[in-house]
Amino acid sequence: MTSHELRINSERLREDMDALAQIGRCENHGIYRMAFSDGDMAGRDWLRQRIEKSGLEFFEDGAANLYARLKPDATVPSVIAGSHMDTVPGAGHLDGALGVVCALEALRVLNESGIELTHPLEAVSFSDEEGRFGGMFGSQSVAGLVTPEYLHNASDLDGVTLSDAMAAQGLDAREALHAQRNPDSIHAYVELHIEQGPVLDRSGLSIGVVDAITGLFKWEITLTGAANHAGTTPMEMRADAFQGLAEFAGQIDRVLSEYGGPHSTATIGRVELTPGAANVIPGRAVFSLDVRDTDHHILEALSDAFRRTLSAIARRRDLMFEFTVLSEIAPVQCDAAVIAAIDASVQSLGLPATHLNSGAAHDAQIIAGIAPTGMIFAPSKEGRSHSAAEWTAWPDIEAGANTLLNTLSQLAT
Amino acid sequence: MTSHELRINSERLREDMDALAQIGRCENHGIYRMAFSDGDMAGRDWLRQRIEKSGLEFFEDGAANLYARLKPDATVPSVIAGSHMDTVPGAGHLDGALGVVCALEALRVLNESGIELTHPLEAVSFSDEEGRFGGMFGSQSVAGLVTPEYLHNASDLDGVTLSDAMAAQGLDAREALHAQRNPDSIHAYVELHIEQGPVLDRSGLSIGVVDAITGLFKWEITLTGAANHAGTTPMEMRADAFQGLAEFAGQIDRVLSEYGGPHSTATIGRVELTPGAANVIPGRAVFSLDVRDTDHHILEALSDAFRRTLSAIARRRDLMFEFTVLSEIAPVQCDAAVIAAIDASVQSLGLPATHLNSGAAHDAQIIAGIAPTGMIFAPSKEGRSHSAAEWTAWPDIEAGANTLLNTLSQLAT
Repeated sequence: MTSHELRINSERLREDMDALAQIGRCENHGIYRMAFSDGDMAGRDWLRQRIEKSGLEFFEDGAANLYARLKPDATVPSVIAGSHMDTVPGAGHLDGALGVVCALEALRVLNESGIELTHPLEAVSFSDEEGRFGGMFGSQSVAGLVTPEYLHNASDLDGVTLSDAMAAQGLDAREALHAQRNPDSIHAYVELHIEQGPVLDRSGLSIGVVDAITGLFKWEITLTGAANHAGTTPMEMRADAFQGLAEFAGQIDRVLSEYGGPHSTATIGRVELTPGAANVIPGRAVFSLDVRDTDHHILEALSDAFRRTLSAIARRRDLMFEFTVLSEIAPVQCDAAVIAAIDASVQSLGLPATHLNSGAAHDAQIIAGIAPTGMIFAPSKEGRSHSAAEWTAWPDIEAGANTLLNTLSQLAT
Repeated sequence: MTSHELRINSERLREDMDALAQIGRCENHGIYRMAFSDGDMAGRDWLRQRIEKSGLEFFEDGAANLYARLKPDATVPSVIAGSHMDTVPGAGHLDGALGVVCALEALRVLNESGIELTHPLEAVSFSDEEGRFGGMFGSQSVAGLVTPEYLHNASDLDGVTLSDAMAAQGLDAREALHAQRNPDSIHAYVELHIEQGPVLDRSGLSIGVVDAITGLFKWEITLTGAANHAGTTPMEMRADAFQGLAEFAGQIDRVLSEYGGPHSTATIGRVELTPGAANVIPGRAVFSLDVRDTDHHILEALSDAFRRTLSAIARRRDLMFEFTVLSEIAPVQCDAAVIAAIDASVQSLGLPATHLNSGAAHDAQIIAGIAPTGMIFAPSKEGRSHSAAEWTAWPDIEAGANTLLNTLSQLAT
């Protein structure tokens, strides 16, 4: 344990954040560093140069994850911090970049401080977190979740395969199969990320200590009734698929109250009506349902309850009801020891903080499967994310970076 | 008044129905006789030949409405029957075609019967009822509702103007401005049409006597909230535009019960969510509202009530609410004397019938503005219309045709 809290070099951190924010930027339209695009490659070049300039060891694994290493020792498990530098199209300058740049800065400070380390330290930037080719490619490779089938099937919305995109940048996707790490090589993983939600911003707090990362299920639901003329079909002779959907949407709050936890969410974000004309009763409604909670049992209860609700509405309204599971991700709990280290850092730094859950998925969710993991959230102005309007005030970025630095220091000494 | 009911020539009517059903037909995909398309022109050629062959006088007005005339006399108002032969894409063989072919058959029978007529008779096929260029072009021309601006603006979904489409078929759209008729030239107008709804079919009746044709208002409504991440935005911090729409949809039955008449309808047929992704809370919902009733005061009360409901939901849910009126059509009452003539015909023919309203718009709605008007409905199998699956059993077609024939006979003698 350090007896005195460390501080990041605010000027150097800011220079790095500003420099990276220019890479892949399209004037007035935000940042374009989608995985293995030219923008992403330019960001990678920049990071490699910054790592080499800092006197840390640069390393790139088979999944093109980039590492800065401080005092590497294959016989001792590492404390790792990081996130990702790839972006969605038209992104802001924070998201994953914040966690990568702050991790690098933390390693530089720890290197300069001369503190004696029990564990090697690594700062990592994972490949394709945002999902041009499916998402979490880098962290899944490290966790051993990437298979030859995964590599064969991964392609972007334009049909470009992951293999071709990597080959075009001089990389061999098959090498990702060699990127898996022995869990024993990781002492802890800590990720600093913006919250991407409004909780910290609305409560005026600088730091969120993440207890758990949400799990979710995502369904595509189809209600089928009968398309008929809106003028000539009496109300009582209709099988209106949209009215079935509307009734279901109206039941979401009840289902969450009866079966959900205090932080459960359920969202209908996409709706498609057929035939979709103003003067025709919708014969079919296809819509998405995204349900999240950090407790596996609550997710199961919500899944059952939503299915029962849909089935009852369909029966009563003479509609046919089908659904497809689009995705299911298990929730993960953050590690108690890592949480304790973050709490202690926040306290010694005197920062206003709260505990919360992550509603979004992160590389941390994958790494939690093989190593003790924790997350630190910085506030997102008005909860904005995946947008050029993404913003965090500089003092809050400093607070997040210092919390990460002191957490790593505690975990590694 | 005729002392004895007349009967159409079933074989001749069937031959005409069958012949017209082949014109513009696309194998397995229904009929394509959109206004002034080649299919429509082929149908027009066929009708002209059938009129000329029947010994009736053929006439085409400036709006390309086609007439068969029996004993024309410019000094005596005519009894007119008809409908339209143009179709939506992929149509069935009935819709407007039924009313045109049965009107022609009725004139042939009255011509052959030697009955002494007080009024000239006309069978008409109106141009572009279905709306390739907006709808009701022919009947609106006759009613004097087509202006130079109308002609200038009318174009189809592909951007082809009405003028160009007519010119390509050797017709001059500007002539439509001369098609207006003096209301004194029309003694009565009667239209036989399929119901396009399920009421007659479900009650096993052959004839619907139409009391009124529905009026309607059609709005495009926009609810604007805030698009946010579905995972990171707690339920209580959302301004979910779709949840606002769903709540409104759930209020439709209440509003109809409180402010509507027994036959009021309200339909949400089109919904567009933005951004429309499964993991994003909808920031905007744009949707249609189609409301119909035959009573002008009820329509006004419904309009007020729906506006209040929307406004209250928007206020409570922190959404912005705007709406645009897409169309407003006033309801029309059918003429008591024409209804009485239809009732008497139905009774003398011993047909199972009921009175109902038309939920769809028809040329009759336009002609009602200048002349006493009535409508006769034939059953639509399962309420289907605007579809190749449109169907009416032959005995019901005969019943409709005989009702039209005897109604015309009563009105013209």
